[in-house]
Amino acid sequence: MDFQNLISDKMLGVKASAIREIFKVAGKPDVISFAGGLPAPESFPVADIKTICNDILDNEPITALQYGISEGYVPLKELVLNRMKEKEDIGRENDDIIIVSGSQQGCDLTAKVLLNEGDGVICEEPSFIGCLNTFRTYNAKLYGVPMNEDGMDLAVLEETLKKNQNIKLIYTIPTFQNPSGITSSLAVRKGMLELAQKYNVMILEDNPYGELRFSGEKIPTIKSMDTTGHVIYLGSFSKVFSPGLRLAYLIMDKGIMEKIVVGKQATDVHTNVFSQMIAARYLKDYNIDESIETSRKLYKHRCHLMLSCMDTYFPKNVSYTRPDGGIFIWVTLPEGVDTGKLMLEAVERKVAFVPGNAFMTDLDKPSHCFRLNYSTMSDEKIEKGIKILGDLLKERL
Amino acid sequence: MDFQNLISDKMLGVKASAIREIFKVAGKPDVISFAGGLPAPESFPVADIKTICNDILDNEPITALQYGISEGYVPLKELVLNRMKEKEDIGRENDDIIIVSGSQQGCDLTAKVLLNEGDGVICEEPSFIGCLNTFRTYNAKLYGVPMNEDGMDLAVLEETLKKNQNIKLIYTIPTFQNPSGITSSLAVRKGMLELAQKYNVMILEDNPYGELRFSGEKIPTIKSMDTTGHVIYLGSFSKVFSPGLRLAYLIMDKGIMEKIVVGKQATDVHTNVFSQMIAARYLKDYNIDESIETSRKLYKHRCHLMLSCMDTYFPKNVSYTRPDGGIFIWVTLPEGVDTGKLMLEAVERKVAFVPGNAFMTDLDKPSHCFRLNYSTMSDEKIEKGIKILGDLLKERL
Repeated sequence: MDFQNLISDKMLGVKASAIREIFKVAGKPDVISFAGGLPAPESFPVADIKTICNDILDNEPITALQYGISEGYVPLKELVLNRMKEKEDIGRENDDIIIVSGSQQGCDLTAKVLLNEGDGVICEEPSFIGCLNTFRTYNAKLYGVPMNEDGMDLAVLEETLKKNQNIKLIYTIPTFQNPSGITSSLAVRKGMLELAQKYNVMILEDNPYGELRFSGEKIPTIKSMDTTGHVIYLGSFSKVFSPGLRLAYLIMDKGIMEKIVVGKQATDVHTNVFSQMIAARYLKDYNIDESIETSRKLYKHRCHLMLSCMDTYFPKNVSYTRPDGGIFIWVTLPEGVDTGKLMLEAVERKVAFVPGNAFMTDLDKPSHCFRLNYSTMSDEKIEKGIKILGDLLKERL
Repeated sequence: MDFQNLISDKMLGVKASAIREIFKVAGKPDVISFAGGLPAPESFPVADIKTICNDILDNEPITALQYGISEGYVPLKELVLNRMKEKEDIGRENDDIIIVSGSQQGCDLTAKVLLNEGDGVICEEPSFIGCLNTFRTYNAKLYGVPMNEDGMDLAVLEETLKKNQNIKLIYTIPTFQNPSGITSSLAVRKGMLELAQKYNVMILEDNPYGELRFSGEKIPTIKSMDTTGHVIYLGSFSKVFSPGLRLAYLIMDKGIMEKIVVGKQATDVHTNVFSQMIAARYLKDYNIDESIETSRKLYKHRCHLMLSCMDTYFPKNVSYTRPDGGIFIWVTLPEGVDTGKLMLEAVERKVAFVPGNAFMTDLDKPSHCFRLNYSTMSDEKIEKGIKILGDLLKERL
């Protein structure tokens, strides 16, 4: 049977993530993989989670195992709202929260509620492949705005908004961006918000890495400056607690939330209740800030080690970002080099990274950039892998 | 700020589930609610789940808490495939399985992969409100085919397929249907499959209640008769293990599965790993059949008690289904009675049910039918609630 004529137009054009294919190679045990984006497993509070699970199953098993409500487990919603108010000054009177099954679902529901086929989404160029693919599954048109050292180029952003009446949404990861590691400056954040208000489009502020700052000064979230309801804030437990439990949250104006809840109902009814209870108990009775501090130190060490190895082994015509947090470094080679081809050579030498084109609005255009991840790697592997990569770059550039 | 002009067309028309609104009333502690659809909490194997959680967190915590793969936890996939092969003779050589975050997501991904806006979906009339709403969020056109005592009316089904070239999918719950409790006969199942093949449309066979048979002879699933790949099978852990853990699975031809996996990636990346491991361990080391047998006995008792109370207290011009399994009874009043209005009166007397229009393709047309659920109710409440309802019906009919 030929299924092709039954597949929807919007899905016909979407391919499996390029990263997935790379993982098949990178996942081999003898390959040093800088291709991933996983949190360090040392950061998972396993013993605490075990205590919590026993407590829940002893005292509230039915709540954990029975159907829940689409908006999320009420104590978790309240704990997250309080924490976000305290840490990020997020949450106006007209805002509400919904617990979702990971950040990707936060992006999916936002797309479902806002986008008609052909509607436009502005994204940073480069940006997170997962959410770009989500927008593609709604047949949205992606408009990439190039990243400067301090975030989106505001002039290009305004020009894009002015030219394209179909734009509904600006998608941004302002803090320790995936894949670039860039943090948008306060001026860029304010500029984005003003333009969103001026052209009446929404901003989806995706902030999974925000708490993983290990140097520099904290910069306010865009949502904390939002007085008009134009910003949808997407926070996640994946990088500060556990990604396997699939927990994230959206905070936004009630006027949009109402439809997000209907979308959530029609998508997976509600998020895993047991996991929501585990996270709630952890926030309430344990010290998540202490646990995040441990991750910060670990990532700072690994990031700085990787950067110092790159300073030593990489040729001088290669540049790269020096992130203040998060888990990624973005490397720029001289124009004309195709990092897709380079990746195949690197894999032969048992080192993996993700070529830049995977993060672009046009996946087929070769890129002279690539992404490195340092969050899960031992010192030995960072040193060995970066040296191998440096040797390859010196041969090819 | 007015968000209405930013909302997508497909979501503008979809309302929050009517059942949700009813739940707000029905959830009050002094109301006897036959409006729900929850499994009996006595059936949750709490002690076993606790043992399993400790074992997982002692021995494989990183696997449970780290990112997983979109297709699902491999041991769970294999255990489910083996079980479905043994119990239902499901799974051809070209079939594959994906673990999803509950049945609703199975329906959502099927809709995402098959449906363009305006494409047609045939459903039983009445049918499960949750999945009808999912199709609505894709701007699909719903075609209801009336249910006879033995399932869909095949003549109307063929006429509908013949007349409407836009139809891509037939959605059916052939066993102990929600809301009607009707089980489609073998002849109807064969007829549906033949028509799907003839008109080259897919069937989504949703079977969450199939294992909850408490009387009558087992009838083969449509998927077990599918030699051409036209049937997508949707199974669930919600009614036989735990709904709070959000675990279900799709089994279908690899030619469609490939796109379902891409959709899953773009929707929530993967299903909660910890929960998948809990279910896998339960299937492997415990006796799920014994646990299901306990549920069957419980539901048989409650169903038969409810039916016998209805025989005693309901007026003679009221008819109702006598299900062989599952958790729902469908009540038909004389034409012209609006069960939406009747429900408000019933709630005043502290009894709740769901009026029939909630399960129809046209939600706004009054219905003379309603749904009763018996799965979570004590004997006392069944007797008391049905008597109150019977008295109300006698007064109004």
